[in-house]
Amino acid sequence: MSKKLFQNATVVTSREVFEGAVLVEGERIALVAREGEPLPENDVQVIDLTGKMLLPGGIDAHTHFDLDVGAMRASDDFYTGSVAAACGGTTTVIDHIANGPAGCALTHMPDVYLNLAKPAVIDYGLHGVISRVDATVLEDMEKLVQRGISSVKIYLTYAQKVEDPAILPVLARAKELGMVVCVHCENDATVTALRSRFVAEGHLQARYHPRSRPAEAEAEAVFRMMMLAKLAGEAKLCIVHLSSGLGLAAARTAREAGQRNVYLETCPQYLFLDDSNYLDDKEGLKFILSPPLRTKQDIAQLWAGVRCGDFDTLATDHCPFFFATQKQRGASDFTQCPNGAPGVELRMPLLFSKAVQGVISLPAMVRLCCARPAEIFGLAHKKGDIAPGLDADFAVFDPAARWTATQSALHENVDYTPYEGMELQGTPVMTVSRGDIIVENGQFIAKKGRGQYLHRSLPLDV
Amino acid sequence: MSKKLFQNATVVTSREVFEGAVLVEGERIALVAREGEPLPENDVQVIDLTGKMLLPGGIDAHTHFDLDVGAMRASDDFYTGSVAAACGGTTTVIDHIANGPAGCALTHMPDVYLNLAKPAVIDYGLHGVISRVDATVLEDMEKLVQRGISSVKIYLTYAQKVEDPAILPVLARAKELGMVVCVHCENDATVTALRSRFVAEGHLQARYHPRSRPAEAEAEAVFRMMMLAKLAGEAKLCIVHLSSGLGLAAARTAREAGQRNVYLETCPQYLFLDDSNYLDDKEGLKFILSPPLRTKQDIAQLWAGVRCGDFDTLATDHCPFFFATQKQRGASDFTQCPNGAPGVELRMPLLFSKAVQGVISLPAMVRLCCARPAEIFGLAHKKGDIAPGLDADFAVFDPAARWTATQSALHENVDYTPYEGMELQGTPVMTVSRGDIIVENGQFIAKKGRGQYLHRSLPLDV
Amino acid sequence: MSKKLFQNATVVTSREVFEGAVLVEGERIALVAREGEPLPENDVQVIDLTGKMLLPGGIDAHTHFDLDVGAMRASDDFYTGSVAAACGGTTTVIDHIANGPAGCALTHMPDVYLNLAKPAVIDYGLHGVISRVDATVLEDMEKLVQRGISSVKIYLTYAQKVEDPAILPVLARAKELGMVVCVHCENDATVTALRSRFVAEGHLQARYHPRSRPAEAEAEAVFRMMMLAKLAGEAKLCIVHLSSGLGLAAARTAREAGQRNVYLETCPQYLFLDDSNYLDDKEGLKFILSPPLRTKQDIAQLWAGVRCGDFDTLATDHCPFFFATQKQRGASDFTQCPNGAPGVELRMPLLFSKAVQGVISLPAMVRLCCARPAEIFGLAHKKGDIAPGLDADFAVFDPAARWTATQSALHENVDYTPYEGMELQGTPVMTVSRGDIIVENGQFIAKKGRGQYLHRSLPLDV
Amino acid sequence: MSKKLFQNATVVTSREVFEGAVLVEGERIALVAREGEPLPENDVQVIDLTGKMLLPGGIDAHTHFDLDVGAMRASDDFYTGSVAAACGGTTTVIDHIANGPAGCALTHMPDVYLNLAKPAVIDYGLHGVISRVDATVLEDMEKLVQRGISSVKIYLTYAQKVEDPAILPVLARAKELGMVVCVHCENDATVTALRSRFVAEGHLQARYHPRSRPAEAEAEAVFRMMMLAKLAGEAKLCIVHLSSGLGLAAARTAREAGQRNVYLETCPQYLFLDDSNYLDDKEGLKFILSPPLRTKQDIAQLWAGVRCGDFDTLATDHCPFFFATQKQRGASDFTQCPNGAPGVELRMPLLFSKAVQGVISLPAMVRLCCARPAEIFGLAHKKGDIAPGLDADFAVFDPAARWTATQSALHENVDYTPYEGMELQGTPVMTVSRGDIIVENGQFIAKKGRGQYLHRSLPLDV
Repeated sequence: MSKKLFQNATVVTSREVFEGAVLVEGERIALVAREGEPLPENDVQVIDLTGKMLLPGGIDAHTHFDLDVGAMRASDDFYTGSVAAACGGTTTVIDHIANGPAGCALTHMPDVYLNLAKPAVIDYGLHGVISRVDATVLEDMEKLVQRGISSVKIYLTYAQKVEDPAILPVLARAKELGMVVCVHCENDATVTALRSRFVAEGHLQARYHPRSRPAEAEAEAVFRMMMLAKLAGEAKLCIVHLSSGLGLAAARTAREAGQRNVYLETCPQYLFLDDSNYLDDKEGLKFILSPPLRTKQDIAQLWAGVRCGDFDTLATDHCPFFFATQKQRGASDFTQCPNGAPGVELRMPLLFSKAVQGVISLPAMVRLCCARPAEIFGLAHKKGDIAPGLDADFAVFDPAARWTATQSALHENVDYTPYEGMELQGTPVMTVSRGDIIVENGQFIAKKGRGQYLHRSLPLDV
Repeated sequence: MSKKLFQNATVVTSREVFEGAVLVEGERIALVAREGEPLPENDVQVIDLTGKMLLPGGIDAHTHFDLDVGAMRASDDFYTGSVAAACGGTTTVIDHIANGPAGCALTHMPDVYLNLAKPAVIDYGLHGVISRVDATVLEDMEKLVQRGISSVKIYLTYAQKVEDPAILPVLARAKELGMVVCVHCENDATVTALRSRFVAEGHLQARYHPRSRPAEAEAEAVFRMMMLAKLAGEAKLCIVHLSSGLGLAAARTAREAGQRNVYLETCPQYLFLDDSNYLDDKEGLKFILSPPLRTKQDIAQLWAGVRCGDFDTLATDHCPFFFATQKQRGASDFTQCPNGAPGVELRMPLLFSKAVQGVISLPAMVRLCCARPAEIFGLAHKKGDIAPGLDADFAVFDPAARWTATQSALHENVDYTPYEGMELQGTPVMTVSRGDIIVENGQFIAKKGRGQYLHRSLPLDV
Repeated sequence: MSKKLFQNATVVTSREVFEGAVLVEGERIALVAREGEPLPENDVQVIDLTGKMLLPGGIDAHTHFDLDVGAMRASDDFYTGSVAAACGGTTTVIDHIANGPAGCALTHMPDVYLNLAKPAVIDYGLHGVISRVDATVLEDMEKLVQRGISSVKIYLTYAQKVEDPAILPVLARAKELGMVVCVHCENDATVTALRSRFVAEGHLQARYHPRSRPAEAEAEAVFRMMMLAKLAGEAKLCIVHLSSGLGLAAARTAREAGQRNVYLETCPQYLFLDDSNYLDDKEGLKFILSPPLRTKQDIAQLWAGVRCGDFDTLATDHCPFFFATQKQRGASDFTQCPNGAPGVELRMPLLFSKAVQGVISLPAMVRLCCARPAEIFGLAHKKGDIAPGLDADFAVFDPAARWTATQSALHENVDYTPYEGMELQGTPVMTVSRGDIIVENGQFIAKKGRGQYLHRSLPLDV
Repeated sequence: MSKKLFQNATVVTSREVFEGAVLVEGERIALVAREGEPLPENDVQVIDLTGKMLLPGGIDAHTHFDLDVGAMRASDDFYTGSVAAACGGTTTVIDHIANGPAGCALTHMPDVYLNLAKPAVIDYGLHGVISRVDATVLEDMEKLVQRGISSVKIYLTYAQKVEDPAILPVLARAKELGMVVCVHCENDATVTALRSRFVAEGHLQARYHPRSRPAEAEAEAVFRMMMLAKLAGEAKLCIVHLSSGLGLAAARTAREAGQRNVYLETCPQYLFLDDSNYLDDKEGLKFILSPPLRTKQDIAQLWAGVRCGDFDTLATDHCPFFFATQKQRGASDFTQCPNGAPGVELRMPLLFSKAVQGVISLPAMVRLCCARPAEIFGLAHKKGDIAPGLDADFAVFDPAARWTATQSALHENVDYTPYEGMELQGTPVMTVSRGDIIVENGQFIAKKGRGQYLHRSLPLDV
C-alpha cells in the first residue's frame, strides 16, 4: 500500500492548528504527527508543505449538479462540477437531486442520479427529496436510509411545495428513522402573490426578484419549520441557505427556548454579496437565485451568527447557468430566469480568506465547511476532519498568497462568477482525495469518474 | 341636563393618578378637577368617593355573548353577560361574533347581533368575522367599516380557518381600509393532527386538551401572521389571547426588527391560571378553552411582558358554559367539550388587585384595560379614559378591601368561576355608564336594554 | 384676553391626525375642534393653516446652552440657542447644566443657570447634575424637586464620573423622591484606557475618537445602570443619547425580563449620521461628540427601535462649537477637541421628514419629540400635546415643501451643521409659544427673554 | 505493558454513542473498536461491560479542595475530595486555588497547592488567581503558563475583587498569552450594600442570603466582563457558575452581536435546586453558596440554555463545610456562614440521569462534563474523550439502575448533600483513571497520592 507523508504543514483540524505532518496509507490517514514526533522514513513519498496549511477537504452539502429545471439543465454536470469543486479544495459534495417525474417512487431519482454522478472526480452523496406525501412515500423513506441517503429535502415553495399537514408526518417519520429533513424555507403564498403582482404590473426587471422573495417570507417559514420539528419530538432539521438576519433571529428565538437538533446552513452568496447587485437590470440576472441576496445589514447579522456559532454548515447551493444564454431567458422577465448561480469552487477560498484575516478562527472554518456537515449528514466516520482512520481528503492552502477572484481562472462550466473581482487572501494549491493528489497548482490532474458514492450513515445524535 | 359630581376620589387615568373630582353633565365628562381646583356647587348631585379610586370604565374587547357553537350556546347572553361585566367595572364590550350560516354575507351576522345585543346594559361594539375569502367578501369589508365595525377577525384553526393565500388579500384590504385584523393564532395542522392522535389513542381526558394545542402551535401562527402583516405594508394586526412565553418571544422578534401596528392581547386566564388545573380529570373541564392554560414559566414570561409594555390590550375571551351540564359533554372526551370559560366580571378586579399591589402601575392597568383598547378599536373619541368630552364611564374601586373571588358572589350566568378562591385586593363598588350609576355595592340597579351600539371609528394611526 | 384661531390645519397630536382647528385664549389652548364642529366667530384672530400641519411644539430634553467646558463655552447661549430651537419648531428645552465648582451645593448651579437662561425666547427647564455623592447631596436632591427640577443627571465617565457604590444611594434617593436619574452611559475604564493608548501611539486624528468610545463601552454602562435601577426598586432612569445597536439590545434584554421605568433617549445624530464622517481628518472634527457616531448597521438597528416603540424621547444633546476656531483645538489631537455638535434647530424637521415619508407615523413623532418627554420630565400638565388647558405651543409645518439643510439657513450660532446637504421634506413655517407667534416663515419675530422657567412636576408614574 | 479490554460496552464519546470496546495499553487508550471490528485476544485482561455505558471520565473544572477561607477550611482536602470525585465518575479536577497572603507572588499559591494536592487520587490541574494587578503580576502571568496553568481567575466581588481599570490589562495580557480568564461575576457594590443593609436591619436568616446577591448583580457583571473581553480583542473568558436566566440572557445578547471566545459554566446546584431551600432558617444554611440558588423560572431558563448549546462546561464549585459545625457559624447571621456546598461526587450522576431520560443527549453530556472543559482548559491532548492516544479515564454507568441520592452513600467528607432524596437513573459502577480501575461498585480501591499534576496547554483556539 502506497504511503505519502505530507510534511512541514500547518495542520488545521476542527479543533486545532499545529505544525506537523500527516501520513497517508492508501486512501486513509494513518498518522497525524505534531512537530517533533517521530515520522516514518522509509517507503514513503514525502510532500513538503512548508509554509502551507493543510485542512480537511471541504464538504459542500448543497450542490445541484446536472439539475434539470425543466426548460434547461444547470451547466455543471457531475464531472465539470466536481472538477471545479476539487480545484477549490472541496473533496465531497452532497447533491440535492431533482424531483423526478410526477408520481415516481422516492427511490427513483436517487437511482437516476447514481448514473448521472458516475463521472464525478470526488466523492459524493445524495439527499433525497419529497414532493408529495402518502403512505408509500413515508414507508419508502426507510429505503433511502438503506441506500445511504440519511437526509431528505422538502420545499415550502415552488411546484413541489409540501404543506403543513403533510410536513408533520414527514417529520414524524424522519424522527423515527433518525433522518435529517432539509428544508427550503420561503412562504409560498407570499412569493406566489408577489410574483403574480409584479408580473401583472409589468415589473419584470431583476430588481423585482428580491422584492418577490422578501426576508419575512423566509423568516416565517424558518420559524414554522422549527415549531413543527419541535412538536415532532425535536426531529432533526436542516434549514438550508438561510439568507436573512430576520430568518436567523427567528431561529435563535426557537433555540433559546431550548430547541435542539436544528442545523442552520448558510451560503457564501449571503455572506459576501448584497442586493445592490440587482440594481443593474442586465448584470442583475447573474444573481437571480433563491432566496435572493439581501441587504448589507443582513450580511452583518449573518456574520455575527457565523462568529458566535449559530451556523452548522456552509454550503453553496451551486446551480450555475450561462449568463450569455441561459440566464437571458430572464432578460425581459425575471420570473423566467433560471434560479441559481455558481459557487462550488470558491466556497473554501472565500471562507479561508476570512479565516486567515481573523474574522473567524481556522478551526471554526473547518467545522463549518467540513466537520459539522460530516456529522450532520452521516459522514463523520469517513470525512470532515484530520484524524487517523478518516479518508485522506485534504485542501492545502498557501495562506500568504493574495489573488483576485475571476471567472477565467475558475473551472466551473459557466461564463461568470458572482465573486468577480473580489480580493482574497490564501490560494488553494493542492487537493487530495482519498490519498490521491487530484489538483496541484490549480491543475486538475486525476481521472474522470474516480469519485465514489458515499453511503451515508445516520446523523450523529449530538 | 343632570349634573353629577364624583368628589374626593383618587382619579386614575391612562397617564396619571391624582386626588380630584369628575363632573358629569348628562352622559359625558364635563370637567376633571384636581384637588384644590374650583368645583361647581349648585344643581349638582354630589357623590362622595373618599377613599375610593375612580378609573375609566373597563373595555373588554373580546367577549362571546350568546355565542352559538353549534350544539349549544354560551350561557351568558347580552343581558346577563353585560350585567356581569358592569358588576366588575366594565362598561364596554366588543363582541367577537359567530360566523353565521355558510356562504352568508359579511354583514349578515352583524345584523343578527344587533338584534341579539339589544338587552345589553352597557355599550357594545362588534368585531366582524371572515371565514371565507372571495371578491365579494373583500369588497364588503368596507360595509363593515360603514356600520362602525372597524375590525375583523380571522381564525387560523377550527372549521372557519383561513389559509395563507386568503389571508394576504384580507390583510391588503384591511390595510387599504385602515381596519384591524384580529387573529386567533394556532397552527391548524398541528392541532388537527394532535387531536386525531389523542382520540385514536383513547387519550380523552382534559389533560390532553393542552397537549393538543401546544405553545409552539401558537408561536408559529403568531410569527406567521406578523410576517404576512408586515408584507402587507404593516397592516394593523391584533393577536388575540396570546397565551405563551414562546408566542410572546416570537412577537418580540418581529417587533425588534422594526415592525409596527401589531397589537397584542392577552387574557386574565393566561396571567393567573396554569396548566396544573388540567390534572384533575373532572375539574379540568372547567378550563377547556383555547388556547389552553400554560405553564408557570409562561405566566412569568407574560407578566414580564405586561410590565414592560409588550401588551396593548387585556380582554377575557369570555365564553361560559355550565360545568354541571354543558361542560360535561367533554366528560369522556375533551374534544367534545365546548371551549371557553367565564371571565368578564373579574377581569378588572384581577388586574386592579395586581396594580394596587404594585406589580404594574395603575395607569398601566388603565392603558391595558381601557385606553389602548379604545385607541386600537376606534373608540378613543368616546371611551377609555377620564377626560372632558368622553363618555362618563367609570369603574370605582375600594382599594383597601380584600376579598376572595367566588362564583356565588358573581353575576355571570354560569355555575363556576376559574378564579374560585383567589384572594384579591380591591373591590368594585360602583359602576357608571354614560353618567348613570348602574351598579352600586355589587347590585346592578339599571334597566335592561340601556346599552347602546357603538359605531366604532378606524383605529388611531399611532 | 386675546383669542387666536388656528384654522383649517391638519392637527397632529400624540394619538391622532385630523383636520381641524385650535382655539387659543391667551397662553393656553381653549378648544380643539374637528372639521365640522362649531368654531367661535367673533373677537378672534384667525390664522389660516390650509395645507399645513399643526403639531405640539417640540420639547428638546437635552441641550447644553452656554455650557462652560473649561477651556471654552458652547457657542449657543440661551438666547441664540432658543431662537434656533424656535425656528425649528421647538418650544421647550430642558437643559443639562454644568457641574459647577468643586464642592458646590447641588442647588448652586441651578441658581447660576436661572440667571444664564433669562434671555431665552422659549420656555425652559433644567436638569440637575450630581458629580459627587455624600449625605448632603442626597438630602439636597429634595431641594431640586422643590425648585421644579425633577430629574438629575450623572455621568459614568469624564471627570465628574460617579461609581457604583455612589450610584446606588442616588438611585435609592431618586426612587424615594420620584425623580428621574438621567445617565450618560459609557464605561469609563475603557474610554480612559483607549484614549491614553491612542495618545501614546500618536493616533490623534478624528478617526480615533469613535475607536476610543466603542459601542461596547456604551452597552456595558447601559446594562449596568438598568440592573442597578432595577435593584433600587425600579428607580426611574433615563438613558440619554443611546447611540448603538448593542446598547439598545442590552436595554431590551433588561426590559424583556420585565423591567419598568427605564426611558430611552436617542438623538438625530445617531439616526442620520454614520461614522464614515470621521474618515476625513479635517471634517471629522465636526462630528467629535460623545458617544460618537456609529456604523450604518447601528443606524438601522436604532430606526427599528424607533419604529417599534423602544424609545421614549428624542433629544439633541445640542452643544455647538465653531468649526473654524473652537473645534480646531482638536486638529492635531482629537482628545483636545471640545465634544459636541449643534442640532437643536433641525431635530423637528429631520423627524418630520421621516414621518411624512412614512418611516414612522406622525403621532409617533409627536410622542417621541413632544408628549413622552413631557410625561417623563414632569411637563405633561403644560406641554407636549394638543389639548384644552395645555400651553398653546405649536410647530407648524408645510408637509409638501422640500428643502436642503444647510448651515446658512439656520439660526444656530455656529459655522456648520452636521446635516449639511441633507434633503428633507417638510419645512417649519410657524412656531407658537404660549399663544405668541414667535417664528413666521423662518423669521424669529418675538422678544428676547420672553421664555419662562418651567417648574417641573415629578414624572408621571406610568 | 499491561493491556485491558473494556468489552461489550455502550461507548459514549463527545460525538457518538455506539456498541463497542476500548483497548487500554498502560495508561492510554490504544484502540476504540465498534461492534464487529476485530479485537485482540491474547495478553489482555478483559472487563465485560455488558449493559453498561462507558463515558470519558468527568472533568470538574471548578473545585475548591482544602480551601482556606480564613476562619476555617473546606472539609474536603485533595484526598477525600478526589476520592469522592472518583466515586462519582470524575477523573480530573481543576482546582480554583486560594489567594494566598497579601502581596504574595502570582506563583506562590500554585506552589503551595502542588504540595497540598499530593494526596489526590485522580489527576488535577490548577487555575491561577489574581487579586491585585501590577506590572509584576501581569508579567508573571507567563510563569503560570510555563507551569501548566493556562487560566487565571478574578473575582468581581469579595475582598479580592478586581475593578475595571485593572481588569482591562489582565484581559489584554491574557489575550497576548492565550490564557483563559475565569471570572466570578457579581456586582460588588450591590452585594456589599445589600449585605450591610440586611445586617443593619437585623435580617440575618438564610433567606436573606439570596436577596443579598440578586440575579441582576450577576447579569450586570456577566455583561460587563463580556464587553471588556470583546474590547480586549475577544480575550478568552470563562464565566464561572452562571446561575440565572437573566445572566444567561445578558451573555446571549453579547454573543448574538458576534462575540467569540466566551465560555459559560454552570453548576448542578443551579440546574437542580431552587431558592425555596432557603425558606427553612435552619436547613437553609446548607445552601449558602454564591451565587445563591435561584427561582424555578431560572432553572427552566438554564436548562433551555443547556439544551441549545449555550453552556461550555458544567462544574461544581465544590466547597463543602460541615452542617453540624462549620455551617452553624451562620446560624444567627448568614453573612458569617462559610459559602459553599459539596457536589463533586454527584455531578456526573445528576447529569447522566438527565441524559438517559432524554433531556439532553449523552454526547451533549460528555461535551459539557468532559470534552469541552478539556478543550477550554488545555487538556484536550490527554483528557475529555474516548479516542486512541488519550488517557484511559473512564466513567462507567449502569443506565438501568435507579437510586436515591443520600449523604450516607457518598464519600465526600461532609455531613450532608444538597441533593438528598433526589431520585436518579443510572449508577456509577466503575471508574478508571489512566488505565487503573480505581473505583468498583462504589468502593474506592486505589492508592492515595496516585493522582498526577496536569501541566495544561493553552486552550484550543476554536
